[in-house]
Formats: sequence, structure tokens, C-alpha cells
Amino acid sequence: MGFGNVGKAFLRLLIAKETELHRRYDVRWRLTGVATRRNGWLAHPEGLNPLAILNGHWPAQHHGAPPRNVRDWLEQAKADVLFEASSLDVHAGQPAIDHIKTALTLGAHAVSVNKGPIVHALRELTSLAREKGKKFLYEATVMDGVPIFSMFPLGLPATELRGFVGVLNSTTNVVLTEIEKGRSFEEGVKRAQAIGVAEGDPSADLDGWDAAVKVAALAIDLMNVPMRLDQVRRTGIRELSEDKIRSVRTSGMRYKLVCRAERRGDHVDCSVQPELLLASDPLANLEGTSSAVRFDLDVFGLSLVEHNPGIEATGYGLLADFLRAVAK
Amino acid sequence: MGFGNVGKAFLRLLIAKETELHRRYDVRWRLTGVATRRNGWLAHPEGLNPLAILNGHWPAQHHGAPPRNVRDWLEQAKADVLFEASSLDVHAGQPAIDHIKTALTLGAHAVSVNKGPIVHALRELTSLAREKGKKFLYEATVMDGVPIFSMFPLGLPATELRGFVGVLNSTTNVVLTEIEKGRSFEEGVKRAQAIGVAEGDPSADLDGWDAAVKVAALAIDLMNVPMRLDQVRRTGIRELSEDKIRSVRTSGMRYKLVCRAERRGDHVDCSVQPELLLASDPLANLEGTSSAVRFDLDVFGLSLVEHNPGIEATGYGLLADFLRAVAK
Repeated sequence: MGFGNVGKAFLRLLIAKETELHRRYDVRWRLTGVATRRNGWLAHPEGLNPLAILNGHWPAQHHGAPPRNVRDWLEQAKADVLFEASSLDVHAGQPAIDHIKTALTLGAHAVSVNKGPIVHALRELTSLAREKGKKFLYEATVMDGVPIFSMFPLGLPATELRGFVGVLNSTTNVVLTEIEKGRSFEEGVKRAQAIGVAEGDPSADLDGWDAAVKVAALAIDLMNVPMRLDQVRRTGIRELSEDKIRSVRTSGMRYKLVCRAERRGDHVDCSVQPELLLASDPLANLEGTSSAVRFDLDVFGLSLVEHNPGIEATGYGLLADFLRAVAK
Repeated sequence: MGFGNVGKAFLRLLIAKETELHRRYDVRWRLTGVATRRNGWLAHPEGLNPLAILNGHWPAQHHGAPPRNVRDWLEQAKADVLFEASSLDVHAGQPAIDHIKTALTLGAHAVSVNKGPIVHALRELTSLAREKGKKFLYEATVMDGVPIFSMFPLGLPATELRGFVGVLNSTTNVVLTEIEKGRSFEEGVKRAQAIGVAEGDPSADLDGWDAAVKVAALAIDLMNVPMRLDQVRRTGIRELSEDKIRSVRTSGMRYKLVCRAERRGDHVDCSVQPELLLASDPLANLEGTSSAVRFDLDVFGLSLVEHNPGIEATGYGLLADFLRAVAK
């Protein structure tokens, strides 16, 4: 569902790792449906030619009437797994939530790169998945394929997460870096769009919505609290002046759009705002598309840093969730 | 097996998290045996009083003859899990390997904080464990309880690890930091001993053996190659002069004992040596007991940083392995 940069990167990885998936994980796959705004809902239960699809050669609808809705499409495609990569709607999480519900109801696993469903419907979707004996997974929503949601249950059992701090939005990171180099805010945005990290409308990134959704998703999943998006205090990077961003560099400091969550009694305080960081702060050294998060656990502090990922890193998140869902 | 700082920290954590282990993981435990050089082999299948043991009140041997060897001890204790924390023998991995073999043969899980068995007998112990339907786990051997060995199979499936670079030895990190602050090499070693990271004889740390064993363990497990300890090129920090260590600080650089592994065709090149790092290098910013490793994967670069852990971080590694072995 959705066949933009992420969907394409995922399909390329599926092809590149086909032999390994079979040999190491006994997993075989067929692409039986693709849904895009431009090309409509395509379903071929015997399998589409993935290379042809990647090259833009869309076959005609195979037989029967074209699917009228996502349920019809999933049934015609006989889908075992839905990969949900439709456009992010931060405020309601739709239509992604309905797509995932439909897939789970029909007995398919659902893998989402879309953050909306995590923030707006995680509990509901997780319990629907459990009821159906299927998986609802969403590793790629934060830091691409870096294992966070999949690391905590088995890698960090019986820990208490007290809070976290991170730099989780690539567009603002690229824009701030470009401004430091002497370019303008607008040039920074264009650069972020050129390397594929910013949308045509970069507002969700620049105004901190993307980061806020990620903070909320991490807090809900890892700290086990309810969290509405409007409970995340949020300031974007638009009000930072270019001069201010450049002048602090001479004293070795940097502005970053910093995400924070801190447990206070029963609830968790979440915020997204530009912060001035010392050069010695690991978060200050992030360049380009790199991102990082530091988890404050009762047993130790643990940081994860993703170094300059490309779009295939997000595609890998879908691949890893696919294996977590279907590999024995 | 072994009841030094790590064993005690582990037991304290078991006590502190007893309710959580039961409630969240349906796991209950009893301490049925402790073996130390000073207090001999103690086995009480009905359970020892853990707080009394922590306070140094050792009960007399309960009944029958005292255990004569590890097999006798494990049988008398009716052990379900052996925690192996005897002293490291880097060159042969003994007697830890024999302890683990005996436990697995008797049908107990084995959890090791001892790196010797990983480097000298990983394949053998892993296949013995598989044959017996038990687990052989060793997360705490590198970066305490930070999930590395437990993260790769489920968190990073179908990835190719091309190499890694890390700062993995705390003693040398503390010594170098103290020298930078103006103290002497000997004062640095004393500081490392005082905070419990260095042994009475710090040679294994200072000469790079500890780091070399860790590099070999990571390469064997994560890169799936055979690796003997003598194949790791190894230089310690003794030949660095205090003046040299301090003088580079003025230009913002730092010496660290750096571990590297790089895949070259069929084999993996491993090394441990002091390296001069730029201030912007995340590895350069590590203070005190902090450690870090950067994994160079085909899909992205991923760093893990552990921030200033205390001894409970190592104890947590044993606790996490315990849960991975026994929790449903």
C-alpha cells in the first residue's frame, strides 16, 4: 500500500536478498498486489513481475473487476502480509489505520512504515493482531530499520525506561547542517528534498510534527503510557535565525531539533524543540540523515546512532519486520 | 560459579527485580549453589538465603559430603541454570569451558560472563547446548548487558556485517582519561581498580588482551568466522607516553584503545591498538567506563554506546540472559 521511495527500496531489497531469505530463513515471497494513487489498486494472486513494476511497467488488471476498496484488493491479492506505506496523516492516522485493521481482520500480518497508526491506534491494532494470531509491526517508523521496538522485549527484558533524548528527524538535521555551511533555510530545504528525506511540503518536518509523532510512538510502546499527539510540547525550527545557527558554531555548539521524554510519576513528559548542544554531546555530531537516541534505563544508559542512512535503510525496516512476522 | 563483584551485582538485581520477574515473566528463582575460591563449593537444593550470602554469612554445607567437583556441585544443587563468572583465562578459556560443558551435559542452561569460552569453544558449546535443548548465552561478555549477541538474530535479520570498530575496554579508557587530566599512568590504574573495573593485575587490560578477546568473540559470533586469539593484531597502551597523551588534547584529539574487525573475502582482519581520534569521532567522546561499537552493516551503520555503566550493568547482562533462557 503506497509505492513511493520506501516501497521501491523495500522491493529492491526483497529481490536482492531473495536467495538469502530462502536459504537462511526458509521464506519465499510473491508480490501479489500494489496500490498507488497514480496506478490504482492492482492485484494478481499468481504474482506480479517485481522488476517490471520497479521499471514502471504496470500490467493491466488481471481478471475480473478492479478492486473497489482495500478489503477487495487484499482479498483478490490473497495477501499474507500488508506493507502499509501510504502518506502520513499525523492528526488522525487515516486511512492507514483502516488499511491495517482490514488486513489483520482478513488474517494477514500488517507491517507499517506509517507512524500515524502507532500514535492513534497502537493498543487497538495490537490487540486485534493478537486476537487474530497475526503480527502488527512498525520498526521502520523510527530510525528506519534500527532495532528499537524489536530490541526492547528480548534484548532489554525487565528494564525500566526512565526517559530518552534523541535527534530523530532527518529533514531538520539536513537543513540546520546546510545553514551552518552558509546556505539559506530555503536551500537547506531543497537539499533535503533532493536527497529524498523531505516531502514536497516539508511542514510536518520543519514544524516538529514528524519528530513529535516519533516521540509519542516511542513513549507509548516503550514506556507503556497513553500519549496523545497534542500532549507533546512541540516547537519547530522555523523561528531559529540563520545568523544564530551559524554564530554558535564558532563556540563549538550546534542547534538540533531535540526530542525528549521523561517519566514523572504515572505520566511521561514529552517535548520536541530546538536545543543548543555542546560539541561533546554525541547528539551534536550528527550529520545529514544520521539520527540518534539515548535511552535512560535503570541498569545503564544506552545510545543508538544510525549513520547517514539512505532510503534502503527504511526499506530494510520493512524487510526485517517481514522476517519477524513470517520466519519460523 | 565465582562470586566476585559481578556475581554479587547479579544477585542484588535478582532480589530487586524478583516481583517483576514473577509478574511479567512468570519466572521464580532459588539460589541453590555458590562456588568461590575462598568459601568452597556450597550446594543447598532447597535454596540458600541470598541476603545472608550477600552479607557474607555462609552457611555450613547442608548435608552429605561437600561437592568434590563442578559436576558433583551442580548435581547436589539441582541447578537449572549455571552462571559462569570465574576468573578469565584468555589463553585457554579454562576451567570455564569445562564448567559450561558439565552444566549443559547435566541439562542446565549456561550463562557466561567469561569471555574465554566464547573465543576458545563457542562452536562446540553452542552445538552441545542445541543437542541438549538448552541455552548457552554470553551477552555480558561484551559491553555488559547491552544487547549485541541477542540483538543481531531478531533485530537485524538478513543483514551482512562488513566490520566494526569500537572502544570496548574500560580500564584503558579510565587510565587514558586520568592521564589527560594530569595524573600518572599508575594513578590511572589505581583509579580503575578503585572503581572496580580493573583487576588486581591489570595486565590483561593494559596489554590489550581483554579487548582482543572481545573482538574475537564479536567476529566469531556476528561475522561467523573462525578466529583464534593469536590472529588478532594486538598492541596495548603501555608504550604511549603521558606527554603524548596530554599534548594531543590541546588540538582536540584523544588516544583510545580501538578495536577493529573488517571482512576481507573469506576471512576477517581483527586488530586492537591505540589510535588517535578526532574530537568529532563519537568514539573519542567516551569517558570513564563508557564503551561503544559501530557496526558497518550493508543496510546502514549502527553504533551502540553504553554510558558510564557501573557493575550492575554487567549483572544485568546475566539477568537478561537468564530471562532469555527460561522465560516463556
